[in-house]
Amino acid sequence: MKPDKRKLKIIPLGGLEEIGMNITAFEYGDSIIVVDCGLSFPSEDMLGIDLVIPDVSYLMDNLSKVKAFFITHGHEDHIGALPYVLKKIPVCVYGTRLSIGLIERKLVENPVPDSCRRKIVKYGQTIQAGDFRVEFIRVNHSIVDAAALAIFTPVGTVVHTGDFKIDYTPVFGSSADLSRFAELGKKGVLAMLCDSTNIFREGFTMSERTVGKTMDHIFMSHQDSRLIVATFASNVDRVQQIINTAHKYGRKVVVDGRSMVSTISTAQELGCIDIPNGCLIDIERLRDYPKEKTVLITTGSQGESMAALSRMATNIHRKVTIEPGDTIILSSTPIPGNEKAVSKVMNELSLLGANVIFQDTHVSGHACQEEIKLMYSLVKPRYAIPVHGEYRHRLAHATMIQEMGWEKNRTIMLNSGDVLELDESDASITGKVQAGKIMVDGLGVGDVGNIVLRDRQTLAQHGIIIVTAVMESATGELISGPEIITRGFVYVKESEELIEDCRQIILGTFDSCRIRKIRDKAKLRTCIREELSDFIWKRMKRDPMILPIIMEV
Amino acid sequence: MKPDKRKLKIIPLGGLEEIGMNITAFEYGDSIIVVDCGLSFPSEDMLGIDLVIPDVSYLMDNLSKVKAFFITHGHEDHIGALPYVLKKIPVCVYGTRLSIGLIERKLVENPVPDSCRRKIVKYGQTIQAGDFRVEFIRVNHSIVDAAALAIFTPVGTVVHTGDFKIDYTPVFGSSADLSRFAELGKKGVLAMLCDSTNIFREGFTMSERTVGKTMDHIFMSHQDSRLIVATFASNVDRVQQIINTAHKYGRKVVVDGRSMVSTISTAQELGCIDIPNGCLIDIERLRDYPKEKTVLITTGSQGESMAALSRMATNIHRKVTIEPGDTIILSSTPIPGNEKAVSKVMNELSLLGANVIFQDTHVSGHACQEEIKLMYSLVKPRYAIPVHGEYRHRLAHATMIQEMGWEKNRTIMLNSGDVLELDESDASITGKVQAGKIMVDGLGVGDVGNIVLRDRQTLAQHGIIIVTAVMESATGELISGPEIITRGFVYVKESEELIEDCRQIILGTFDSCRIRKIRDKAKLRTCIREELSDFIWKRMKRDPMILPIIMEV
Repeated sequence: MKPDKRKLKIIPLGGLEEIGMNITAFEYGDSIIVVDCGLSFPSEDMLGIDLVIPDVSYLMDNLSKVKAFFITHGHEDHIGALPYVLKKIPVCVYGTRLSIGLIERKLVENPVPDSCRRKIVKYGQTIQAGDFRVEFIRVNHSIVDAAALAIFTPVGTVVHTGDFKIDYTPVFGSSADLSRFAELGKKGVLAMLCDSTNIFREGFTMSERTVGKTMDHIFMSHQDSRLIVATFASNVDRVQQIINTAHKYGRKVVVDGRSMVSTISTAQELGCIDIPNGCLIDIERLRDYPKEKTVLITTGSQGESMAALSRMATNIHRKVTIEPGDTIILSSTPIPGNEKAVSKVMNELSLLGANVIFQDTHVSGHACQEEIKLMYSLVKPRYAIPVHGEYRHRLAHATMIQEMGWEKNRTIMLNSGDVLELDESDASITGKVQAGKIMVDGLGVGDVGNIVLRDRQTLAQHGIIIVTAVMESATGELISGPEIITRGFVYVKESEELIEDCRQIILGTFDSCRIRKIRDKAKLRTCIREELSDFIWKRMKRDPMILPIIMEV
Repeated sequence: MKPDKRKLKIIPLGGLEEIGMNITAFEYGDSIIVVDCGLSFPSEDMLGIDLVIPDVSYLMDNLSKVKAFFITHGHEDHIGALPYVLKKIPVCVYGTRLSIGLIERKLVENPVPDSCRRKIVKYGQTIQAGDFRVEFIRVNHSIVDAAALAIFTPVGTVVHTGDFKIDYTPVFGSSADLSRFAELGKKGVLAMLCDSTNIFREGFTMSERTVGKTMDHIFMSHQDSRLIVATFASNVDRVQQIINTAHKYGRKVVVDGRSMVSTISTAQELGCIDIPNGCLIDIERLRDYPKEKTVLITTGSQGESMAALSRMATNIHRKVTIEPGDTIILSSTPIPGNEKAVSKVMNELSLLGANVIFQDTHVSGHACQEEIKLMYSLVKPRYAIPVHGEYRHRLAHATMIQEMGWEKNRTIMLNSGDVLELDESDASITGKVQAGKIMVDGLGVGDVGNIVLRDRQTLAQHGIIIVTAVMESATGELISGPEIITRGFVYVKESEELIEDCRQIILGTFDSCRIRKIRDKAKLRTCIREELSDFIWKRMKRDPMILPIIMEV
């Protein structure tokens, strides 16, 4: 189908195969705007990869059209890829106060071209960008200053909920602006992209304030003990509540862990957190106070091996030593995949004599089923586009709202790269653009691909055997070697016999190749690899990488 | 302290740092008996390792004392290490019918010495082994024929619960023999080793039969759809219920997946499962029946990548193709660490159009808090020894029963290798024996140690760079090379400049070594490694393994 210039195109470039790497392009005529630009963390098979960013080839191919980025909130899965992407697409970035604050901090370490400016937007404010107007609407989430977006286009209004929950008693600021969603719904909304994260949870997500009550209870019943609370660095509201409770019980607060210190200082500068005078102390001053008069707020609630809590658990933290009687609160739930790591840290802390509290000190930042239904009831979009979830989340989302009356042709399941074209009368997927994951390894962006990863997997499984030999180029005679070097294969000192047997196999291969007059180095290498691989598989059922190197002189 | 021959020693050789690898030695005078002999699965950092078995050096050092193994039930974490351990310690193995059946099957592929016989024991039966007498007591668990043990010793009776739950309405056989536990308790029990797996769950574990009701409901409401149920191969009762329900609704049953087929045929031979005539059909006959008249019971409920369900999900199963309309039931909960893999399979199945049902079709096989308390109320052991759990499970277990009146000196926390000496009047840890994990990789047992693992981790992270050169031995002149070969580092075709820069660094190092008259090959290798490592770290913040190979002719 030929692209229709009078239609709106919605093109997700990430975020639909997983929870992470959110980025969606909106295109009309010669204007493109992009909502969010997040990263995701590597899956288990991406060995050695530090993080993953979206492939934005489509935006680069249409660079002159791209007007701006609009950021819903300051979490890594929504802003984390900006330092990489803005280098190539240096346009303006719009976001609320804390979102921009956190982005600025990232860009200090990763400078981007001057043409890329950052602008703070207030709730209710509307920004013109090409053929689009974008309004920021207040929602609640596990970070301050989260926004949904109303995107006004020539063919109708599109609402993007961002990550949201509805918290009638938020810790900071006001409740989600339900009236504005209702107003937009009354006027007519063409489409809504809505958060699917908690679609499997019934009911309503509890208010962040309920955590405050649990905290109060824990503080009250542990007045003789030092308290250490681990939570997400970005959850400023959670930190606010811990500080409030600490202040109430006359405790001094230390903030620990690089990302925690940095986020809280950004939040403090921007007025997103309210710290009573004298409540916060430097970690160096901990020793000046009785232990039971202190609280540490720290990173590492996901069991991350280099975070502050893990360093305390393994006794390598430079400032804090866990002692019997310490009470440690994990104010978080493990993100899928981190369960074992969290469990490990909890065991280590328990072994040091600490009392570890795990349950009931966390609420989610995402809407449960009833909140999602509420959002649909208010916004009443013609087309529903579930986002922010794996396929099964989005499918359950679609199924749920079909029960509310959104027929199948009005619930649209997209994959990353799909081009959805829509106007008042129709919505259909008309094409596909390049989209995918770019792996970042150290300073290298995209230089590790599938071949390299496959090699890393082979090396990880059974190591490598390197066979070296020097051949006289004129005669094909072996004049040095074969030598065998292994790494990650067996403990060589205890496997001399095996290595010698391997050497005999290789010598035999050289002999038989000479008899068969095989002189080509590539063929010789293949013979050695095959013979040795066979031998090792039969002997020990292992499949190491085998690398014959034949040098000629 | 000198070991006291008139005391009982309890020596756990595994199972106390994790859930898995259960094995405990009981020693009195010149007699040792061993309860269970399980394996565990490798942790994430054990790259390439297939499974882990306990270090039984202590038993081998005391070989003449070892009288027998007593097996509580047929799960891998209780029997899986027997094929390895029996080769070294070929004594008699006692267990109930299905436990021995499953062990026999293992030993067909891994023959052990003739002196190692296997004997089936009935509930209530007592076996004499050296100074010990051991009675098998019926308990319920997620496998048929599970037993607790009463171990009668010269200093008193020790109860080992094995893995247990109390199921008043079991699918097969009778409820746990609570009367016998009460009777033993009345007569006086010195110590009890008790399952800690579900210590964080309140209340009572639901009966296996409740799963039958849910299954019935699902079968009733999906009469037009083929059903595929994935569950644990060893959960014979679960399979029994699925077969019963299938029979009720007139469906034919296919059992799929190697371990599932093998366990069910063992259970069938032993009469542990009751299959109505004509209900079970071969997978080849599937096509002879309408889809909605069939049920597949399959392995892969943990997302294991090579199991039948994963093969269906990725369309590489040779006999079964998932089609829209199929209903797939995951009758299990993910074991910690498997969450992401399970999620992946569920997404893949959904994408093929299948309806995936996940919730409410599983109950645990382990006792919750109230069942554990009930066991203590009946058995009333003088000493409580929490087992089968990570430290934090066992600690919570100890804390819970302290509330029931077991004082701290009567709740004993052991680590693997600890020697607990006890008699009527005292219990204390008096020593430590060798204990630990032996890694199995292919056919190699224990030949992969920490050095090999560390190499595999380095290789997995950033690959390897091999530098080869041939030197004239008399002069130290380079006569061939340096050549650079990389694997798992960068995509070489797109990194020619980098590789050439590396070559220049190496040439520079050779030069500077020649000027500084460094001719020793080891020193030369170190210089190359350091220079190249520095260069790569500065340029790309990566740390591959660097392996210089210098050959002389």
